[in-house]
Amino acid sequence: MKNVLIIGCGLLGSSLLRRIAKKKLAKKIFVYEKSKKNIAKIKKLKLPGILVKKPQDAVSQSELIIFSTTTSEYKKMILKLNKFLTSKHIITDVGSAKLKSEEIIKKNLKRNIFWTSSHPIAGSEVSGPEHGKHNLFENKWCVLVKSKKTNFKNLKYLSIFWKKMGSKTVIMNSEKHDKVFSITSHLPHLIAYNLVKTAQDFEKKQKYDLIKYSAGGLRDFSRIASSNEIMWRDIFFDNKKNVSKAINLFVKTLNAFKKDINTKNNKSILKKLKQTKKVRFKIIKLKQDINKPDFGRD
Amino acid sequence: MKNVLIIGCGLLGSSLLRRIAKKKLAKKIFVYEKSKKNIAKIKKLKLPGILVKKPQDAVSQSELIIFSTTTSEYKKMILKLNKFLTSKHIITDVGSAKLKSEEIIKKNLKRNIFWTSSHPIAGSEVSGPEHGKHNLFENKWCVLVKSKKTNFKNLKYLSIFWKKMGSKTVIMNSEKHDKVFSITSHLPHLIAYNLVKTAQDFEKKQKYDLIKYSAGGLRDFSRIASSNEIMWRDIFFDNKKNVSKAINLFVKTLNAFKKDINTKNNKSILKKLKQTKKVRFKIIKLKQDINKPDFGRD
Repeated sequence: MKNVLIIGCGLLGSSLLRRIAKKKLAKKIFVYEKSKKNIAKIKKLKLPGILVKKPQDAVSQSELIIFSTTTSEYKKMILKLNKFLTSKHIITDVGSAKLKSEEIIKKNLKRNIFWTSSHPIAGSEVSGPEHGKHNLFENKWCVLVKSKKTNFKNLKYLSIFWKKMGSKTVIMNSEKHDKVFSITSHLPHLIAYNLVKTAQDFEKKQKYDLIKYSAGGLRDFSRIASSNEIMWRDIFFDNKKNVSKAINLFVKTLNAFKKDINTKNNKSILKKLKQTKKVRFKIIKLKQDINKPDFGRD
Repeated sequence: MKNVLIIGCGLLGSSLLRRIAKKKLAKKIFVYEKSKKNIAKIKKLKLPGILVKKPQDAVSQSELIIFSTTTSEYKKMILKLNKFLTSKHIITDVGSAKLKSEEIIKKNLKRNIFWTSSHPIAGSEVSGPEHGKHNLFENKWCVLVKSKKTNFKNLKYLSIFWKKMGSKTVIMNSEKHDKVFSITSHLPHLIAYNLVKTAQDFEKKQKYDLIKYSAGGLRDFSRIASSNEIMWRDIFFDNKKNVSKAINLFVKTLNAFKKDINTKNNKSILKKLKQTKKVRFKIIKLKQDINKPDFGRD
Protein backbone atom coordinates (compact mmCIF):
# COMPACT_ATOMS: atom_id res chain seq x y z
CA MET A 1 0.00 0.00 0.00
CA LYS A 2 1.26 3.44 -0.83
CA ASN A 3 -0.38 6.04 1.37
CA VAL A 4 -3.57 5.91 3.37
CA LEU A 5 -5.90 8.63 4.61
CA ILE A 6 -7.90 8.00 7.79
CA ILE A 7 -10.80 10.39 8.23
CA GLY A 8 -11.91 10.48 11.86
CA CYS A 9 -9.47 9.31 14.50
CA GLY A 10 -11.63 7.99 17.33
CA LEU A 11 -11.63 4.47 18.71
CA LEU A 12 -11.74 2.73 15.33
CA GLY A 13 -9.71 5.25 13.32
CA SER A 14 -6.90 5.35 15.86
CA SER A 15 -6.87 1.55 16.08
CA LEU A 16 -6.45 1.35 12.29
CA LEU A 17 -3.72 3.97 12.53
CA ARG A 18 -1.86 2.02 15.23
CA ARG A 19 -2.16 -1.25 13.33
CA ILE A 20 -1.08 0.13 9.94
CA ALA A 21 1.90 1.85 11.55
CA LYS A 22 2.89 -1.16 13.64
CA LYS A 23 2.76 -3.50 10.66
CA LYS A 24 4.40 -0.88 8.41
CA LEU A 25 1.67 -1.33 5.81
CA ALA A 26 1.77 2.17 4.30
CA LYS A 27 4.43 4.65 3.33
CA LYS A 28 2.53 7.57 4.77
CA ILE A 29 -0.56 7.60 6.99
CA PHE A 30 -2.54 10.83 6.80
CA VAL A 31 -4.98 11.49 9.61
CA TYR A 32 -7.82 13.97 9.58
CA GLU A 33 -9.69 14.66 12.80
CA LYS A 34 -12.16 17.51 13.23
CA SER A 35 -12.40 17.57 17.04
CA LYS A 36 -9.83 19.82 18.69
CA LYS A 37 -10.05 17.74 21.85
CA ASN A 38 -9.15 14.59 19.93
CA ILE A 39 -6.34 16.36 18.06
CA ALA A 40 -4.82 17.35 21.41
CA LYS A 41 -5.12 13.75 22.60
CA ILE A 42 -3.50 12.41 19.40
CA LYS A 43 -0.56 14.77 19.87
CA LYS A 44 -0.21 13.97 23.56
CA LEU A 45 -0.33 10.22 22.82
CA LYS A 46 2.30 10.76 20.09
CA LEU A 47 0.31 8.55 17.73
CA PRO A 48 2.00 7.79 14.41
CA GLY A 49 0.83 9.39 11.14
CA ILE A 50 0.65 12.88 9.72
CA LEU A 51 -2.19 15.07 10.98
CA VAL A 52 -3.70 17.08 8.11
CA LYS A 53 -5.76 20.22 8.58
CA LYS A 54 -8.03 19.51 5.61
CA PRO A 55 -8.72 15.97 4.41
CA GLN A 56 -8.70 17.11 0.77
CA ASP A 57 -4.99 17.98 1.14
CA ALA A 58 -4.12 14.29 1.42
CA VAL A 59 -6.58 12.76 -1.05
CA SER A 60 -4.50 12.88 -4.22
CA GLN A 61 -1.49 11.33 -2.46
CA SER A 62 -3.55 8.49 -0.96
CA GLU A 63 -4.36 5.08 -2.40
CA LEU A 64 -6.80 4.09 0.34
CA ILE A 65 -9.28 6.40 2.09
CA ILE A 66 -11.06 5.17 5.22
CA PHE A 67 -14.04 6.99 6.71
CA SER A 68 -14.19 6.30 10.42
CA THR A 69 -16.50 9.14 11.44
CA THR A 70 -20.14 8.86 12.48
CA THR A 71 -22.45 8.60 9.44
CA SER A 72 -23.89 12.07 10.04
CA GLU A 73 -20.49 13.42 8.89
CA TYR A 74 -20.39 11.51 5.59
CA LYS A 75 -22.27 13.96 3.36
CA LYS A 76 -20.27 17.03 4.31
CA MET A 77 -17.02 15.15 3.96
CA ILE A 78 -17.89 13.61 0.59
CA LEU A 79 -18.80 17.02 -0.82
CA LYS A 80 -15.42 18.34 0.32
CA LEU A 81 -13.49 15.48 -1.24
CA ASN A 82 -15.41 14.96 -4.50
CA LYS A 83 -13.21 17.32 -6.51
CA PHE A 84 -10.08 15.38 -5.60
CA LEU A 85 -11.36 11.85 -5.96
CA THR A 86 -10.56 9.58 -8.92
CA SER A 87 -11.72 6.13 -9.95
CA LYS A 88 -8.37 4.79 -8.76
CA HIS A 89 -9.07 5.59 -5.13
CA ILE A 90 -10.10 2.79 -2.87
CA ILE A 91 -12.66 4.19 -0.46
CA THR A 92 -14.25 2.48 2.49
CA ASP A 93 -15.94 3.27 5.79
CA VAL A 94 -16.52 1.44 9.04
CA GLY A 95 -20.14 2.40 9.82
CA SER A 96 -22.71 0.11 11.41
CA ALA A 97 -25.75 0.83 9.20
CA LYS A 98 -25.24 0.24 5.51
CA LEU A 99 -28.49 0.95 3.65
CA LYS A 100 -28.51 4.55 4.80
CA SER A 101 -24.81 5.17 4.15
CA GLU A 102 -25.24 3.62 0.69
CA GLU A 103 -28.03 6.14 0.07
CA ILE A 104 -25.89 9.09 1.27
CA ILE A 105 -22.97 7.93 -0.85
CA LYS A 106 -25.11 7.38 -3.94
CA LYS A 107 -26.64 10.80 -3.59
CA ASN A 108 -23.46 12.76 -2.93
CA LEU A 109 -20.42 10.95 -4.27
CA LYS A 110 -19.16 12.03 -7.68
CA ARG A 111 -19.95 9.56 -10.49
CA ASN A 112 -17.51 6.78 -11.40
CA ILE A 113 -15.93 6.73 -7.99
CA PHE A 114 -15.90 3.39 -6.14
CA TRP A 115 -16.82 3.06 -2.52
CA THR A 116 -16.80 -0.35 -0.86
CA SER A 117 -18.26 -0.37 2.64
CA SER A 118 -16.75 -2.27 5.55
CA HIS A 119 -18.05 -2.99 9.02
CA PRO A 120 -15.54 -4.35 11.51
CA ILE A 121 -17.42 -5.99 14.41
CA ALA A 122 -15.13 -4.59 17.05
CA GLY A 123 -15.46 -1.86 19.59
CA SER A 124 -16.35 -1.08 23.13
CA GLU A 125 -18.51 1.30 25.13
CA VAL A 126 -15.63 3.80 25.10
CA SER A 127 -14.71 6.16 22.29
CA GLY A 128 -11.83 8.47 21.44
CA PRO A 129 -8.23 7.98 20.23
CA GLU A 130 -6.93 7.22 23.72
CA HIS A 131 -8.82 3.92 23.77
CA GLY A 132 -7.73 2.63 20.35
CA LYS A 133 -5.41 -0.36 20.15
CA HIS A 134 -3.50 -2.08 17.38
CA ASN A 135 -5.15 -5.44 18.04
CA LEU A 136 -8.75 -4.18 18.24
CA PHE A 137 -9.69 -6.10 15.06
CA GLU A 138 -7.76 -9.28 15.90
CA ASN A 139 -9.93 -12.37 15.27
CA LYS A 140 -13.00 -10.19 14.86
CA TRP A 141 -15.34 -10.38 11.89
CA CYS A 142 -15.29 -7.64 9.31
CA VAL A 143 -18.27 -7.48 6.94
CA LEU A 144 -17.55 -6.28 3.40
CA VAL A 145 -20.62 -4.97 1.64
CA LYS A 146 -21.31 -6.04 -1.90
CA SER A 147 -23.79 -4.37 -4.22
CA LYS A 148 -24.55 -4.46 -7.95
CA LYS A 149 -22.02 -1.69 -8.50
CA THR A 150 -19.21 -3.22 -6.46
CA ASN A 151 -15.75 -3.03 -8.00
CA PHE A 152 -14.39 -6.52 -7.42
CA LYS A 153 -10.77 -5.42 -7.53
CA ASN A 154 -11.45 -3.02 -4.66
CA LEU A 155 -13.42 -5.64 -2.75
CA LYS A 156 -10.46 -8.00 -2.99
CA TYR A 157 -8.06 -5.23 -1.98
CA LEU A 158 -10.14 -4.46 1.13
CA SER A 159 -10.53 -8.11 1.99
CA ILE A 160 -6.73 -8.41 2.08
CA PHE A 161 -6.49 -5.13 3.98
CA TRP A 162 -8.83 -6.30 6.77
CA LYS A 163 -7.01 -9.60 7.04
CA LYS A 164 -3.86 -7.57 7.65
CA MET A 165 -5.80 -5.77 10.39
CA GLY A 166 -6.25 -9.21 11.97
CA SER A 167 -9.90 -9.69 10.96
CA LYS A 168 -11.83 -12.55 9.44
CA THR A 169 -13.89 -11.27 6.50
CA VAL A 170 -17.36 -12.06 5.22
CA ILE A 171 -19.29 -10.60 2.29
CA MET A 172 -22.95 -9.51 2.55
CA ASN A 173 -25.28 -7.14 0.80
CA SER A 174 -26.45 -4.12 2.78
CA GLU A 175 -30.02 -5.43 3.21
CA LYS A 176 -28.79 -8.55 4.95
CA HIS A 177 -26.14 -6.64 6.87
CA ASP A 178 -28.66 -4.20 8.32
CA LYS A 179 -31.07 -6.98 9.29
CA VAL A 180 -28.39 -9.10 10.97
CA PHE A 181 -26.93 -6.23 12.97
CA SER A 182 -30.31 -4.81 13.93
CA ILE A 183 -30.61 -8.00 16.00
CA THR A 184 -27.07 -8.76 17.15
CA SER A 185 -25.92 -5.22 17.87
CA HIS A 186 -28.46 -2.40 17.48
CA LEU A 187 -31.26 -4.02 19.51
CA PRO A 188 -28.95 -5.04 22.42
CA HIS A 189 -27.62 -1.48 22.68
CA LEU A 190 -31.08 0.06 22.42
CA ILE A 191 -32.35 -2.30 25.12
CA ALA A 192 -29.43 -1.51 27.41
CA TYR A 193 -30.16 2.22 27.10
CA ASN A 194 -33.85 1.69 27.78
CA LEU A 195 -33.32 -0.65 30.70
CA VAL A 196 -31.09 1.89 32.40
CA LYS A 197 -33.67 4.59 31.66
CA THR A 198 -36.40 2.40 33.19
CA ALA A 199 -34.33 2.03 36.37
CA GLN A 200 -33.69 5.79 36.43
CA ASP A 201 -37.37 6.62 36.03
CA PHE A 202 -38.33 4.06 38.66
CA GLU A 203 -35.77 5.43 41.11
CA LYS A 204 -37.06 8.94 40.64
CA LYS A 205 -40.71 7.95 40.98
CA GLN A 206 -40.31 5.63 43.97
CA LYS A 207 -37.62 7.76 45.60
CA TYR A 208 -35.66 4.54 46.13
CA ASP A 209 -31.91 4.54 46.05
CA LEU A 210 -31.62 1.51 43.84
CA ILE A 211 -28.58 2.04 41.64
CA LYS A 212 -26.32 0.94 44.47
CA TYR A 213 -27.81 -2.54 44.21
CA SER A 214 -26.96 -2.79 40.54
CA ALA A 215 -24.54 -5.72 40.97
CA GLY A 216 -27.47 -8.09 40.40
CA GLY A 217 -27.56 -7.47 36.65
CA LEU A 218 -28.16 -3.80 35.91
CA ARG A 219 -24.42 -3.06 36.16
CA ASP A 220 -23.55 -4.87 32.93
CA PHE A 221 -26.29 -3.10 30.99
CA SER A 222 -25.13 0.27 32.30
CA ARG A 223 -21.71 -0.33 30.78
CA ILE A 224 -23.21 -0.97 27.34
CA ALA A 225 -25.52 2.04 27.80
CA SER A 226 -22.55 4.34 28.32
CA SER A 227 -21.58 4.09 24.65
CA ASN A 228 -21.17 7.16 22.46
CA GLU A 229 -24.53 8.89 21.98
CA ILE A 230 -23.84 10.49 18.58
CA MET A 231 -22.74 7.22 17.05
CA TRP A 232 -25.75 5.37 18.42
CA ARG A 233 -28.24 8.08 17.48
CA ASP A 234 -26.93 7.82 13.92
CA ILE A 235 -27.19 4.03 13.93
CA PHE A 236 -30.74 4.01 15.32
CA PHE A 237 -31.86 6.65 12.82
CA ASP A 238 -29.99 5.12 9.88
CA ASN A 239 -31.36 1.61 10.47
CA LYS A 240 -34.73 2.67 11.84
CA LYS A 241 -36.82 0.33 9.73
CA ASN A 242 -35.02 -2.81 10.85
CA VAL A 243 -34.54 -1.52 14.40
CA SER A 244 -38.29 -0.86 14.69
CA LYS A 245 -39.04 -4.36 13.47
CA ALA A 246 -36.53 -5.78 15.95
CA ILE A 247 -38.19 -3.86 18.80
CA ASN A 248 -41.60 -5.22 17.76
CA LEU A 249 -40.30 -8.76 17.65
CA PHE A 250 -38.66 -8.34 21.04
CA VAL A 251 -41.78 -6.82 22.67
CA LYS A 252 -43.85 -9.70 21.32
CA THR A 253 -41.41 -12.22 22.81
CA LEU A 254 -41.36 -10.29 26.10
CA ASN A 255 -45.16 -10.15 26.38
CA ALA A 256 -45.44 -13.88 25.76
CA PHE A 257 -42.91 -14.40 28.54
CA LYS A 258 -44.90 -12.12 30.85
CA LYS A 259 -48.00 -14.18 30.14
CA ASP A 260 -46.07 -17.36 30.99
CA ILE A 261 -45.05 -15.84 34.32
CA ASN A 262 -48.54 -14.62 35.18
CA THR A 263 -50.14 -17.94 34.31
CA LYS A 264 -47.25 -19.82 35.97
CA ASN A 265 -46.67 -21.82 32.80
CA ASN A 266 -43.85 -23.91 34.18
CA LYS A 267 -43.25 -26.01 31.07
CA SER A 268 -43.06 -23.06 28.70
CA ILE A 269 -40.84 -20.93 30.98
CA LEU A 270 -38.36 -23.73 31.63
CA LYS A 271 -38.17 -24.51 27.92
CA LYS A 272 -37.40 -20.87 27.15
CA LEU A 273 -34.86 -20.47 29.98
CA LYS A 274 -33.06 -23.63 28.86
CA GLN A 275 -33.15 -22.99 25.13
CA THR A 276 -31.28 -19.71 25.31
CA LYS A 277 -28.28 -21.63 26.68
CA LYS A 278 -27.84 -23.10 23.19
CA VAL A 279 -26.93 -19.65 21.91
CA ARG A 280 -24.36 -19.35 24.67
CA PHE A 281 -22.78 -22.68 23.76
CA LYS A 282 -22.61 -21.58 20.15
CA ILE A 283 -21.03 -18.24 21.07
CA ILE A 284 -18.36 -20.01 23.14
CA LYS A 285 -17.78 -22.57 20.38
CA LEU A 286 -17.39 -19.78 17.82
CA LYS A 287 -14.91 -18.10 20.17
CA GLN A 288 -16.99 -14.91 20.39
CA ASP A 289 -16.52 -15.09 24.17
CA ILE A 290 -14.62 -17.24 26.62
CA ASN A 291 -16.17 -19.89 28.84
CA LYS A 292 -15.21 -18.28 32.13
CA PRO A 293 -17.68 -17.12 34.76
CA ASP A 294 -18.10 -13.42 35.33
CA PHE A 295 -18.43 -12.33 38.94
CA GLY A 296 -18.05 -8.62 38.18
CA ARG A 297 -14.77 -6.81 37.75
CA ASP A 298 -12.38 -5.81 40.55
CA MET B 1 -20.58 -19.30 66.43
CA LYS B 2 -21.02 -22.92 67.50
CA ASN B 3 -22.13 -25.03 64.59
CA VAL B 4 -23.76 -24.08 61.32
CA LEU B 5 -25.92 -26.04 58.89
CA ILE B 6 -25.87 -25.07 55.24
CA ILE B 7 -28.79 -26.48 53.27
CA GLY B 8 -28.00 -26.49 49.55
CA CYS B 9 -24.38 -26.36 48.49
CA GLY B 10 -24.39 -24.65 45.10
CA LEU B 11 -22.65 -21.41 44.16
CA LEU B 12 -23.81 -19.48 47.23
CA GLY B 13 -23.88 -22.33 49.75
CA SER B 14 -20.38 -23.50 48.85
CA SER B 15 -19.09 -19.92 48.98
CA LEU B 16 -20.48 -19.58 52.53
CA LEU B 17 -18.92 -22.93 53.39
CA ARG B 18 -15.52 -21.87 52.08
CA ARG B 19 -15.66 -18.52 53.87
CA ILE B 20 -16.81 -19.90 57.23
CA ALA B 21 -14.11 -22.58 57.11
CA LYS B 22 -11.37 -20.21 55.98
CA LYS B 23 -12.17 -17.71 58.74
CA LYS B 24 -12.70 -20.53 61.27
CA LEU B 25 -16.06 -19.04 62.28
CA ALA B 26 -17.78 -22.27 63.34
CA LYS B 27 -16.81 -25.37 65.27
CA LYS B 28 -18.59 -27.67 62.87
CA ILE B 29 -20.09 -26.91 59.46
CA PHE B 30 -22.81 -29.33 58.41
CA VAL B 31 -23.68 -29.42 54.74
CA TYR B 32 -26.79 -30.90 53.20
CA GLU B 33 -27.02 -31.21 49.45
CA LYS B 34 -29.73 -33.19 47.64
CA SER B 35 -28.14 -33.46 44.21
CA LYS B 36 -25.94 -36.54 43.78
CA LYS B 37 -23.98 -34.74 41.09
CA ASN B 38 -23.18 -31.88 43.46
CA ILE B 39 -22.28 -34.29 46.29
CA ALA B 40 -19.76 -35.97 43.99
CA LYS B 41 -18.32 -32.55 43.10
CA ILE B 42 -18.09 -31.53 46.78
CA LYS B 43 -16.19 -34.72 47.56
CA LYS B 44 -13.89 -34.36 44.58
CA LEU B 45 -13.17 -30.72 45.48
CA LYS B 46 -12.47 -31.83 49.07
CA LEU B 47 -14.55 -28.94 50.37
CA PRO B 48 -14.51 -28.47 54.15
CA GLY B 49 -17.52 -29.36 56.34
CA ILE B 50 -19.42 -32.50 57.21
CA LEU B 51 -21.84 -33.81 54.58
CA VAL B 52 -25.06 -35.00 56.20
CA LYS B 53 -27.51 -37.39 54.56
CA LYS B 54 -30.57 -35.75 56.12
CA PRO B 55 -30.62 -32.10 57.14
CA GLN B 56 -32.69 -32.90 60.26
CA ASP B 57 -29.73 -34.92 61.62
CA ALA B 58 -27.74 -31.71 62.10
CA VAL B 59 -30.45 -29.29 63.22
CA SER B 60 -30.29 -29.81 66.98
CA GLN B 61 -26.50 -29.41 66.97
CA SER B 62 -26.61 -26.20 64.91
CA GLU B 63 -26.90 -22.60 66.06
CA LEU B 64 -27.30 -21.12 62.60
CA ILE B 65 -29.22 -22.68 59.70
CA ILE B 66 -28.82 -21.22 56.21
CA PHE B 67 -31.13 -22.14 53.35
CA SER B 68 -29.28 -21.72 50.09
CA THR B 69 -31.56 -23.77 47.85
CA THR B 70 -33.98 -22.45 45.24
CA THR B 71 -37.24 -21.27 46.83
CA SER B 72 -39.21 -24.14 45.33
CA GLU B 73 -37.39 -26.38 47.84
CA TYR B 74 -38.28 -24.36 50.95
CA LYS B 75 -41.64 -25.91 51.80
CA LYS B 76 -40.50 -29.52 51.65
CA MET B 77 -37.40 -28.71 53.66
CA ILE B 78 -39.26 -26.72 56.33
CA LEU B 79 -41.72 -29.56 56.85
CA LYS B 80 -38.81 -31.95 57.34
CA LEU B 81 -37.08 -29.72 59.87
CA ASN B 82 -40.05 -28.38 61.87
CA LYS B 83 -39.94 -31.14 64.47
CA PHE B 84 -36.32 -30.34 65.30
CA LEU B 85 -36.45 -26.55 65.30
CA THR B 86 -36.51 -24.44 68.47
CA SER B 87 -36.89 -20.72 69.12
CA LYS B 88 -33.14 -20.59 69.77
CA HIS B 89 -32.24 -21.41 66.19
CA ILE B 90 -31.14 -18.61 63.95
CA ILE B 91 -32.54 -19.35 60.52
CA THR B 92 -31.92 -17.46 57.32
CA ASP B 93 -31.98 -17.95 53.56
CA VAL B 94 -30.34 -16.28 50.57
CA GLY B 95 -33.25 -16.11 48.10
CA SER B 96 -33.92 -13.27 45.67
CA ALA B 97 -37.69 -12.84 46.10
CA LYS B 98 -38.84 -12.16 49.64
CA LEU B 99 -42.62 -11.68 49.65
CA LYS B 100 -43.19 -15.18 48.35
CA SER B 101 -40.65 -16.85 50.63
CA GLU B 102 -42.18 -14.99 53.59
CA GLU B 103 -45.54 -16.47 52.59
CA ILE B 104 -44.11 -20.01 52.30
CA ILE B 105 -42.36 -19.65 55.65
CA LYS B 106 -45.43 -18.22 57.41
CA LYS B 107 -47.58 -21.03 56.06
CA ASN B 108 -45.26 -23.91 56.85
CA LEU B 109 -42.82 -23.05 59.61
CA LYS B 110 -43.75 -24.20 63.12
CA ARG B 111 -44.97 -21.40 65.41
CA ASN B 112 -42.55 -19.43 67.57
CA ILE B 113 -39.60 -20.14 65.35
CA PHE B 114 -37.67 -17.12 64.01
CA TRP B 115 -36.60 -16.81 60.43
CA THR B 116 -34.73 -13.71 59.27
CA SER B 117 -34.27 -13.53 55.50
CA SER B 118 -31.04 -12.42 53.83
CA HIS B 119 -30.24 -11.60 50.22
CA PRO B 120 -26.58 -11.29 49.35
CA ILE B 121 -26.25 -9.38 46.05
CA ALA B 122 -23.53 -11.62 44.71
CA GLY B 123 -23.44 -14.30 42.10
CA SER B 124 -22.74 -15.05 38.53
CA GLU B 125 -24.29 -16.79 35.55
CA VAL B 126 -22.69 -20.05 36.73
CA SER B 127 -24.00 -22.34 39.45
CA GLY B 128 -22.75 -25.36 41.36
CA PRO B 129 -20.22 -25.91 44.17
CA GLU B 130 -17.25 -25.89 41.80
CA HIS B 131 -17.76 -22.18 41.13
CA GLY B 132 -18.09 -21.02 44.74
CA LYS B 133 -15.35 -18.89 46.27
CA HIS B 134 -14.56 -17.65 49.75
CA ASN B 135 -14.58 -14.00 48.64
CA LEU B 136 -17.84 -14.09 46.67
CA PHE B 137 -19.53 -11.72 49.15
CA GLU B 138 -16.57 -9.37 49.61
CA ASN B 139 -17.69 -5.73 49.38
CA LYS B 140 -21.10 -6.80 48.10
CA TRP B 141 -24.37 -5.66 49.61
CA CYS B 142 -26.41 -8.07 51.68
CA VAL B 143 -30.03 -7.14 52.31
CA LEU B 144 -31.49 -8.20 55.66
CA VAL B 145 -35.27 -8.36 55.65
CA LYS B 146 -37.18 -6.84 58.52
CA SER B 147 -40.86 -7.48 59.23
CA LYS B 148 -43.22 -6.89 62.14
CA LYS B 149 -42.25 -10.25 63.57
CA THR B 150 -38.50 -9.83 63.27
CA ASN B 151 -36.44 -10.95 66.23
CA PHE B 152 -33.97 -8.11 66.66
CA LYS B 153 -31.36 -10.26 68.38
CA ASN B 154 -31.31 -12.55 65.35
CA LEU B 155 -31.22 -9.61 62.95
CA LYS B 156 -28.16 -8.28 64.76
CA TYR B 157 -26.56 -11.73 64.79
CA LEU B 158 -27.04 -12.04 61.03
CA SER B 159 -25.81 -8.54 60.39
CA ILE B 160 -22.54 -9.44 62.14
CA PHE B 161 -22.46 -12.76 60.30
CA TRP B 162 -22.72 -11.14 56.86
CA LYS B 163 -20.06 -8.62 57.75
CA LYS B 164 -17.80 -11.56 58.54
CA MET B 165 -18.65 -12.87 55.07
CA GLY B 166 -17.22 -9.59 53.75
CA SER B 167 -20.57 -7.93 52.95
CA LYS B 168 -21.98 -4.50 53.60
CA THR B 169 -25.47 -4.85 55.11
CA VAL B 170 -28.70 -2.92 54.63
CA ILE B 171 -32.13 -3.49 56.15
CA MET B 172 -35.36 -3.39 54.10
CA ASN B 173 -38.85 -4.78 54.34
CA SER B 174 -39.80 -7.44 51.81
CA GLU B 175 -42.13 -5.13 49.83
CA LYS B 176 -39.32 -2.67 49.14
CA HIS B 177 -36.82 -5.47 48.57
CA ASP B 178 -38.96 -7.12 45.91
CA LYS B 179 -39.62 -3.82 44.14
CA VAL B 180 -35.96 -2.76 44.11
CA PHE B 181 -34.69 -6.09 42.82
CA SER B 182 -37.47 -6.46 40.25
CA ILE B 183 -35.74 -3.52 38.54
CA THR B 184 -32.03 -3.98 39.28
CA SER B 185 -31.84 -7.74 38.92
CA HIS B 186 -34.98 -9.60 37.83
CA LEU B 187 -35.83 -7.36 34.86
CA PRO B 188 -32.24 -7.34 33.48
CA HIS B 189 -32.10 -11.15 33.60
CA LEU B 190 -35.56 -11.51 32.07
CA ILE B 191 -34.59 -9.12 29.29
CA ALA B 192 -31.34 -10.93 28.60
CA TYR B 193 -33.23 -14.22 28.22
CA ASN B 194 -35.78 -12.64 25.92
CA LEU B 195 -33.23 -10.82 23.80
CA VAL B 196 -31.37 -14.05 23.17
CA LYS B 197 -34.68 -15.76 22.37
CA THR B 198 -35.53 -12.97 19.91
CA ALA B 199 -32.20 -13.52 18.14
CA GLN B 200 -32.79 -17.28 18.09
CA ASP B 201 -36.27 -16.91 16.62
CA PHE B 202 -35.03 -14.39 14.06
CA GLU B 203 -32.18 -16.68 13.04
CA LYS B 204 -34.54 -19.57 12.55
CA LYS B 205 -37.08 -17.54 10.60
CA GLN B 206 -34.62 -15.70 8.36
CA LYS B 207 -32.28 -18.69 8.04
CA TYR B 208 -29.43 -16.28 8.76
CA ASP B 209 -26.37 -17.44 10.60
CA LEU B 210 -26.24 -14.47 12.94
CA ILE B 211 -24.93 -15.72 16.27
CA LYS B 212 -21.40 -15.61 14.93
CA TYR B 213 -21.68 -11.82 14.73
CA SER B 214 -22.65 -11.54 18.40
CA ALA B 215 -19.55 -9.55 19.39
CA GLY B 216 -21.49 -6.34 18.68
CA GLY B 217 -23.55 -6.61 21.87
CA LEU B 218 -25.53 -9.85 21.94
CA ARG B 219 -22.57 -11.71 23.45
CA ASP B 220 -22.83 -10.00 26.85
CA PHE B 221 -26.56 -10.68 27.09
CA SER B 222 -26.01 -14.34 26.21
CA ARG B 223 -23.73 -14.70 29.22
CA ILE B 224 -26.41 -13.36 31.57
CA ALA B 225 -29.01 -15.52 29.82
CA SER B 226 -27.03 -18.66 30.59
CA SER B 227 -27.91 -18.43 34.30
CA ASN B 228 -29.54 -21.31 36.15
CA GLU B 229 -33.07 -21.87 34.83
CA ILE B 230 -34.61 -23.34 38.01
CA MET B 231 -33.44 -20.44 40.14
CA TRP B 232 -34.70 -17.87 37.66
CA ARG B 233 -38.03 -19.59 37.09
CA ASP B 234 -38.56 -19.49 40.85
CA ILE B 235 -37.61 -15.81 41.02
CA PHE B 236 -39.86 -14.81 38.11
CA PHE B 237 -42.80 -16.77 39.56
CA ASP B 238 -42.18 -15.65 43.15
CA ASN B 239 -41.96 -11.97 42.27
CA LYS B 240 -44.40 -12.04 39.37
CA LYS B 241 -46.42 -9.00 40.42
CA ASN B 242 -43.42 -6.67 40.55
CA VAL B 243 -41.75 -8.31 37.56
CA SER B 244 -44.90 -7.82 35.47
CA LYS B 245 -45.01 -4.16 36.45
CA ALA B 246 -41.33 -3.79 35.60
CA ILE B 247 -41.93 -5.33 32.16
CA ASN B 248 -44.82 -2.91 31.55
CA LEU B 249 -42.71 0.08 32.55
CA PHE B 250 -39.88 -1.12 30.33
CA VAL B 251 -42.12 -1.72 27.30
CA LYS B 252 -43.59 1.75 27.72
CA THR B 253 -40.10 3.26 27.78
CA LEU B 254 -39.09 1.16 24.79
CA ASN B 255 -42.12 2.17 22.72
CA ALA B 256 -41.50 5.86 23.41
CA PHE B 257 -37.92 5.34 22.22
CA LYS B 258 -39.17 3.60 19.07
CA LYS B 259 -41.42 6.56 18.38
CA ASP B 260 -38.43 8.91 18.81
CA ILE B 261 -36.50 6.88 16.26
CA ASN B 262 -39.34 6.74 13.75
CA THR B 263 -40.04 10.46 14.01
CA LYS B 264 -36.31 11.21 14.09
CA ASN B 265 -36.72 13.18 17.29
CA ASN B 266 -33.09 14.19 17.60
CA LYS B 267 -33.43 16.24 20.78
CA SER B 268 -35.32 13.58 22.71
CA ILE B 269 -33.06 10.71 21.59
CA LEU B 270 -29.85 12.55 22.42
CA LYS B 271 -31.21 13.52 25.84
CA LYS B 272 -32.06 9.88 26.57
CA LEU B 273 -28.75 8.51 25.28
CA LYS B 274 -26.84 11.03 27.36
CA GLN B 275 -28.87 10.75 30.55
CA THR B 276 -28.26 7.06 31.01
CA LYS B 277 -24.56 7.85 31.40
CA LYS B 278 -25.39 9.39 34.79
CA VAL B 279 -26.31 5.94 36.08
CA ARG B 280 -22.98 4.64 34.83
CA PHE B 281 -21.07 7.39 36.66
CA LYS B 282 -22.98 6.58 39.82
CA ILE B 283 -22.28 2.86 39.49
CA ILE B 284 -18.56 3.56 39.08
CA LYS B 285 -18.60 6.01 42.00
CA LEU B 286 -20.35 3.45 44.19
CA LYS B 287 -17.69 0.90 43.16
CA GLN B 288 -20.29 -1.49 41.73
CA ASP B 289 -18.05 -1.76 38.65
CA ILE B 290 -14.64 -0.51 37.59
CA ASN B 291 -14.07 2.29 35.11
CA LYS B 292 -12.23 0.20 32.55
CA PRO B 293 -13.35 -0.34 28.97
CA ASP B 294 -14.57 -3.77 28.00
CA PHE B 295 -13.47 -5.01 24.57
CA GLY B 296 -14.66 -8.56 25.15
CA ARG B 297 -12.70 -11.25 26.95
CA ASP B 298 -9.70 -13.14 25.56
